[in-house]
Amino acid sequence: MNRRDFIATTAAAAAALAVPEVLAAAGDELAPIFAEIARQHDANLRRLQYWIQQPAIAAENRANDEGAELMMQMLRDAGFQMAKKMPTAGHPGVFATLDAGAPKTLGLYFMFDVKQADPAEWISPPFEARVLDRPGLGKALIGRGAVNQKGPEATFLAALHAIRAAGRKLPVNLVLVAEGEEEIGSPHIKQIVDTPEVQAALKKTVGVFMPHAAQGLDGNVTLFLGAKGVIELELISSGEKWGRGPKKDIHSSNKARVDSPAWHLVQALNTLVKADGTPDIDNFTVNARPISAAEKALVAKAAATLDEAIIKKGMGVDKWINDVGFRESLERLVSQPTVNIEGLVGGYTGPGGKTILPGRAVAKLDLRLVPDMTAKEALAALKAHLAKRGFGDIEVNMSGGYDPTSTAGDSAFIQAQVAAYKASGVDPTIMPRLAGSYPGYAFTDPPLSLPAGHFGLCNGNGAHAPDEYFLIESSNPKVQGMDGGVRSYVEYLYAIAKTA
Amino acid sequence: MNRRDFIATTAAAAAALAVPEVLAAAGDELAPIFAEIARQHDANLRRLQYWIQQPAIAAENRANDEGAELMMQMLRDAGFQMAKKMPTAGHPGVFATLDAGAPKTLGLYFMFDVKQADPAEWISPPFEARVLDRPGLGKALIGRGAVNQKGPEATFLAALHAIRAAGRKLPVNLVLVAEGEEEIGSPHIKQIVDTPEVQAALKKTVGVFMPHAAQGLDGNVTLFLGAKGVIELELISSGEKWGRGPKKDIHSSNKARVDSPAWHLVQALNTLVKADGTPDIDNFTVNARPISAAEKALVAKAAATLDEAIIKKGMGVDKWINDVGFRESLERLVSQPTVNIEGLVGGYTGPGGKTILPGRAVAKLDLRLVPDMTAKEALAALKAHLAKRGFGDIEVNMSGGYDPTSTAGDSAFIQAQVAAYKASGVDPTIMPRLAGSYPGYAFTDPPLSLPAGHFGLCNGNGAHAPDEYFLIESSNPKVQGMDGGVRSYVEYLYAIAKTA
Repeated sequence: MNRRDFIATTAAAAAALAVPEVLAAAGDELAPIFAEIARQHDANLRRLQYWIQQPAIAAENRANDEGAELMMQMLRDAGFQMAKKMPTAGHPGVFATLDAGAPKTLGLYFMFDVKQADPAEWISPPFEARVLDRPGLGKALIGRGAVNQKGPEATFLAALHAIRAAGRKLPVNLVLVAEGEEEIGSPHIKQIVDTPEVQAALKKTVGVFMPHAAQGLDGNVTLFLGAKGVIELELISSGEKWGRGPKKDIHSSNKARVDSPAWHLVQALNTLVKADGTPDIDNFTVNARPISAAEKALVAKAAATLDEAIIKKGMGVDKWINDVGFRESLERLVSQPTVNIEGLVGGYTGPGGKTILPGRAVAKLDLRLVPDMTAKEALAALKAHLAKRGFGDIEVNMSGGYDPTSTAGDSAFIQAQVAAYKASGVDPTIMPRLAGSYPGYAFTDPPLSLPAGHFGLCNGNGAHAPDEYFLIESSNPKVQGMDGGVRSYVEYLYAIAKTA
Repeated sequence: MNRRDFIATTAAAAAALAVPEVLAAAGDELAPIFAEIARQHDANLRRLQYWIQQPAIAAENRANDEGAELMMQMLRDAGFQMAKKMPTAGHPGVFATLDAGAPKTLGLYFMFDVKQADPAEWISPPFEARVLDRPGLGKALIGRGAVNQKGPEATFLAALHAIRAAGRKLPVNLVLVAEGEEEIGSPHIKQIVDTPEVQAALKKTVGVFMPHAAQGLDGNVTLFLGAKGVIELELISSGEKWGRGPKKDIHSSNKARVDSPAWHLVQALNTLVKADGTPDIDNFTVNARPISAAEKALVAKAAATLDEAIIKKGMGVDKWINDVGFRESLERLVSQPTVNIEGLVGGYTGPGGKTILPGRAVAKLDLRLVPDMTAKEALAALKAHLAKRGFGDIEVNMSGGYDPTSTAGDSAFIQAQVAAYKASGVDPTIMPRLAGSYPGYAFTDPPLSLPAGHFGLCNGNGAHAPDEYFLIESSNPKVQGMDGGVRSYVEYLYAIAKTA
């Protein structure tokens, strides 16, 4: 759900940090592994490039099965003894395990699908994965999926290759669930996770993490203790369903005698938010848990660390909603449910005008949910709200979404993340919740009730946008390139073995 | 401005009419001319096909000058002694005269541009002008501009060819103004008409008419005593202009802390109409002239003639606005100003969703104006309305439009139209006003203050849509094909000479 853009803009700021002296910090134990990482650099890059050159795109029904097959092959190559395809009601996922004979087991959540890409908008073909010099960054791989999520995932797999090449056994066992439908809202992740053998395997884990290029351009990392839930949907107003207005586009002169589904949509939309744009859907926020004192304290600490001006500049924003200050903007970000218009599309959308009265108009919305809201209740609240106001004919087509997810900051799983970041010379900023969404609920909700989150050094950006990149060689010593990312996963695996 | 679709749906209904016995009705005087029309059928068809194969498209800046050149050549071929290109601040128009030494002079308004066309949507390539068998119609020419407006205009020129071939002099002199920007809202028609030599020439005319395929599928014709005015515009809400919200698309999770230009637009739009969709813009309708008793009488007569069920079916409409009856729906159609949404486009408009908070959202509107409203005042009212409500940052980009136009039903110009229709066996339904728009104001407003309108038999449909057609050979004896259209123009020219 495009969490990358969000994380990058949030994390793109911080006080200067000491240059991470990674090799020294790693100590003798990991040095041979780190040496392998450097030696395998070219092979690791080629593996990532090859993956990006084989896109699986759920929204286009493109190479979904091939994407699962390739994922399985890459996992086997990295040492997973078992990797199997998991059929779903949609596109297949993958379930894989690596038994290292270790006392502890770590869960992994991967996605192998990518967002669509329009080559015309890119400086370099999105499925060629070229490495280009990027001013201010260094050498970066440009391609669809570079940061979301093939780059970080391939970088994690490189850590497994390095550990093996150094003659070591993995310090933890691994259980991996991968899906090929993340970019369409993970409609079947729960179906994969709920499979008895997957449940049984995940139950043994200390938590589930997703590889992630977490560093901002200043080297800082923000660590999120969960994420908002989301529902994505289309509101469709049509003459067909309304029983008023035309069933097709007609000449606009008829507006004098015929009702307009487009105006009907505007009037329905107008009831969904207050004048300041905050949610106004009946019963939508009734179960929204207010921000806690502990969460406020985390936010206050983050507000003191993050650079408001850089964040505003990165987004092209001059003022926060209601002119609140920075700390309050962050409190809102982590704690407020939202009703957002992603897109409006109805009637004539080309250049200039066309004198039609459209038979149909659509608003694409996303609604973000905080604990203890649920996707199911949010959808029901929206439908009841519309029906009560005479907009019951407007179709509410939910295309994807899921509940919020939360992980305790004092869990061993999170503490291992903090330890691994610190071992890499980075002191992460901790935020109560990602304002974006990912389907962590599949792991954090009962019956599994596991910790879950993202982890990984390195930098990348442009998820869902043109020129998506993943940093290969960094020109900024505070920001890791691919090899530094691999090292961070090695640190993390050993930290999990020790602390989780 | 796509008046065709409107006229076709309105006129697609009527009581059965006697089969027009055109040759007999024409009498001895016109028989030799009518014989030439039949003889020249193939040449007339080829001329139209060639014209459609050379499209000039203002919206695409395509062949605008070539379109003017071809127009001039076609006018000279038809007997105009003078045809010259008229430069404007946009694309050129054409001014032409034919002096037949007759006592009376008739004005003509032509357009030589056509709307864009997407070949993928057509049954036959839009710029090949193939003639195909169409079930229920007969043989029809399929092509962009077939009915809007090259078919009727070429059919009028065929009348001039026939009269000359029959060895006759034209019964009236002609003054013609043609533009190449009708499909983008005629932004420079006034500049052409206001040229002193054009003004002087038009001043001598009894009125200005545009050739038109006025017959519905039942053979009926509706004659309009003017047309509504229109302004077409885009309302653009952007973070850039607003000073709130993002200047570009950002991740939708930021909705919790950042204002949304898309919601800002929805809230602005919501103020423009009442709950029933009728205009609610301050001072917008203050100069709207209420429907008169005479106009009501015309509408009542039309309501008794037209077939409500066929009109509703043609538009895919089950109910009129506010559940009014048919007569009232027609009264509204001719007398009510409107605020219509042509299109909504903002943020992500592709399939499925994309979690962005758009930096910009646009609504495309058209506002229809009745006498004595003006385009200038309507635009000013809209801007003031928005500014007063805190939406002054929303850009109002007017792309085209003009004032309403009216012509007296008892003018000799209109009476000649009625006479010519009756001579062709058609008793026209007279409506106070076309609910669509055309730039007749350039002729009907001071200083010219001329009558103006459309005229012509034959049928066609699909202006601005795929599979636009113009009937060449009709399978319905009540509906004229191209040759019948040519005959109707001959009738009209002689009727003007006699009555106007």
